[in-house]
Amino acid sequence: ADPATGRLLASKCQTCHGLDGIAKIPIAPHLAGESRIYLETQLKAFRSGKREHEMMSVIARDLSDAEISDLSAWYESIQITATMPE
Amino acid sequence: ADPATGRLLASKCQTCHGLDGIAKIPIAPHLAGESRIYLETQLKAFRSGKREHEMMSVIARDLSDAEISDLSAWYESIQITATMPE
Repeated sequence: ADPATGRLLASKCQTCHGLDGIAKIPIAPHLAGESRIYLETQLKAFRSGKREHEMMSVIARDLSDAEISDLSAWYESIQITATMPE
Repeated sequence: ADPATGRLLASKCQTCHGLDGIAKIPIAPHLAGESRIYLETQLKAFRSGKREHEMMSVIARDLSDAEISDLSAWYESIQITATMPE
């Protein structure tokens, strides 16, 4: 898996999920820092039809295993920090 | 929706997802800062069976609408920052 290739492929994702994995719209999840295994599992579930979403089912349908791997490596490579409210 | 109540309810979530929404195990997603609408949609999808996961289908089955709302408000209330690799 190559995060640099994934970063280029993320042009397909960034309108909703952001290139940095911070979502642009409330119905889309942030992807920043999510683990490769989680992201790969979800993309493959959308591709197979196990998980369904109007937009993601279409996007995932045409992704190869290598593309799923690279995209997941890109979003995993982003560092996140979380701050709880006081 | 009351994030303070959600924080208490999150004792059910924190072993895998962290109280601060940073996941403890790779198969679980980070929840920090995800939008209420996204989180509520997913919890209701697990509850109804539309989305399936060995663990989450069981956890979500017994959540009320109010609990889903409060939990989602808690995780939404966490601030996140993302830093892309150089």
